[in-house]
Amino acid sequence: MAGGQHGPTLASVAAAAGVSRQTVSNVLNAPDRVAPDTRARVEAAIKALNYRPHRVARSLRTQASRMLGYRVRPTPPGELNPVLDRFVHAVTDAAAEHGFHLLLFTADDDDGLAQYAELLGQRAVDGFILADTVVGDPRHRWLAERDVPFVSFGRTWQGEEVGPWVDVDGATGTAEAVEHVYALGHRRIAYLGWPEGSGVGDDRLSGYQAACQRLGLTPRVVRAEQGMAPGHARAAELLDGPEPPTAIVCVSDVFAYGALRAIAERGLRPGHDVAVVGFDDTPAAGLPGIELTSVAQPIEQAGRTAVRVLLHALGVPGVPDPGRAHLLRPTLTVRASTSP
Amino acid sequence: MAGGQHGPTLASVAAAAGVSRQTVSNVLNAPDRVAPDTRARVEAAIKALNYRPHRVARSLRTQASRMLGYRVRPTPPGELNPVLDRFVHAVTDAAAEHGFHLLLFTADDDDGLAQYAELLGQRAVDGFILADTVVGDPRHRWLAERDVPFVSFGRTWQGEEVGPWVDVDGATGTAEAVEHVYALGHRRIAYLGWPEGSGVGDDRLSGYQAACQRLGLTPRVVRAEQGMAPGHARAAELLDGPEPPTAIVCVSDVFAYGALRAIAERGLRPGHDVAVVGFDDTPAAGLPGIELTSVAQPIEQAGRTAVRVLLHALGVPGVPDPGRAHLLRPTLTVRASTSP
Repeated sequence: MAGGQHGPTLASVAAAAGVSRQTVSNVLNAPDRVAPDTRARVEAAIKALNYRPHRVARSLRTQASRMLGYRVRPTPPGELNPVLDRFVHAVTDAAAEHGFHLLLFTADDDDGLAQYAELLGQRAVDGFILADTVVGDPRHRWLAERDVPFVSFGRTWQGEEVGPWVDVDGATGTAEAVEHVYALGHRRIAYLGWPEGSGVGDDRLSGYQAACQRLGLTPRVVRAEQGMAPGHARAAELLDGPEPPTAIVCVSDVFAYGALRAIAERGLRPGHDVAVVGFDDTPAAGLPGIELTSVAQPIEQAGRTAVRVLLHALGVPGVPDPGRAHLLRPTLTVRASTSP
Repeated sequence: MAGGQHGPTLASVAAAAGVSRQTVSNVLNAPDRVAPDTRARVEAAIKALNYRPHRVARSLRTQASRMLGYRVRPTPPGELNPVLDRFVHAVTDAAAEHGFHLLLFTADDDDGLAQYAELLGQRAVDGFILADTVVGDPRHRWLAERDVPFVSFGRTWQGEEVGPWVDVDGATGTAEAVEHVYALGHRRIAYLGWPEGSGVGDDRLSGYQAACQRLGLTPRVVRAEQGMAPGHARAAELLDGPEPPTAIVCVSDVFAYGALRAIAERGLRPGHDVAVVGFDDTPAAGLPGIELTSVAQPIEQAGRTAVRVLLHALGVPGVPDPGRAHLLRPTLTVRASTSP
């Protein structure tokens, strides 16, 4: 990436300040992680050398790739993620308004870094939009260390976030779901979540726990791997066990669909006998026979915001600085599954 | 596109044969449309000049864009097309196996030709994968005239198809739906379709009509614009009218969801009282409370086939000629909505 450059580089700043490249990158991307005196030293070196981050990308722009890289995970049929599909549409539309296109790629290796490196080497893209983030996602640091512009849809949940990001506030969404069924009179409100260790799942769970604490409820958490069958099985255990819940707040619509099936199998009526709330407001949630109350993510807003953040980092004219951290608020779509 | 070429071109073949570029293109892409003597003259010129179609693309490949262009239609939220989203995933995966990526773009104008031209001018792509085809789609001829490799997912339904294509046999799928409910004892089988003039809709309707004729049934066709509300309204009229159907075969799952609602509202049981069949087997079809019998398109196969056709046209090593026309057979997924 640095071939052909004659100005200051991340490496020359690091050398001048007597720190590692990673530290310089941290000062640029996550200054709170750097001790104040080190930070001051690096900032002085940046100023002295007149170093401008992302200049590699700026120099590449004369080649006008005008392409934003986006990795699509290989998905088994039937396990599509409609949320990310909507995100791709939103990003494609928003990028087109500024003459940018999306480059879709898949990666064989787990984190896809080899593929990111290859696309950079080919100068095929000006920057990346990351999604499908995992806890401690290595891509963010890898890209930041190489001065590659990127924006992340989703956090990495480990220390300070590296680089700019857009995410949806899952904790608040789940807390609102709990408050909604509480307001309807429910007091035995269970939570059907994913196994511990998923950033998104733990975030949503924290909203449930916080709401229970505020409302004086005893939390009751059961967990399963994502999927309709596991969600159905856990919900069935809850309903058949002692003191069955009168409301089940789910980490996903898929779990909620399983819970609805378990409720119907027991001759109970969703909403009337047992309330159910999902998360993601997937297309099926509004169908007759389903009518699932669900937390809706503002995906179009997330896509547009991510594009603005990245295009601003690329110095695209007419894109004002939208800021580096965007926690978007979800909304609750209320349907029959929580109607008494 | 032709800049820097020194070998024979489409234009030089046309000049040698005394015909237009379009005629040469037709000989290459739709030989049945060309009168035999003209065709022989063009073929002789091709041989004499040793002209090789798609050599423009071959010469471009030294620039290694290794990118396949795919237009995404701007979609209003809530009106996503899960079939095409699955197609994009399948194409991305299949292309990656040969080191190709997908370039997603949107287009402001109706047919997007300006955008196709711009991408070609930038040499951003090696070829295109067309989807969202319309009757008489202008893109196919436009690309063929310029010798640009492409493959179409979907036909254009006007005369001979221009260029290689992959499609799903909607007529056969709908006919199987009719035969399925007929075998269950239904004789009053109505069809809920789209307005006349949509290639896909007319194709599916023709399967219904053919099956009715074979089985000695009187066809009964009602039409509505795509959408759950219009589908619901038409189904309600059918159910409330004289001699209501005992089975409704629908051109889309969305119509079928509307029909299921109309059936439930009348205290009838889907499958038991009125059978319903959808088309596309969208993710919601299998959910509890829905359980819709639906015609499933082999989308992953369509995506893989389309990529093979295009990569072969691009001369990618190790991709044998898969042929130019692929009509794939859908399958019927039977669920409770047709279970007596």
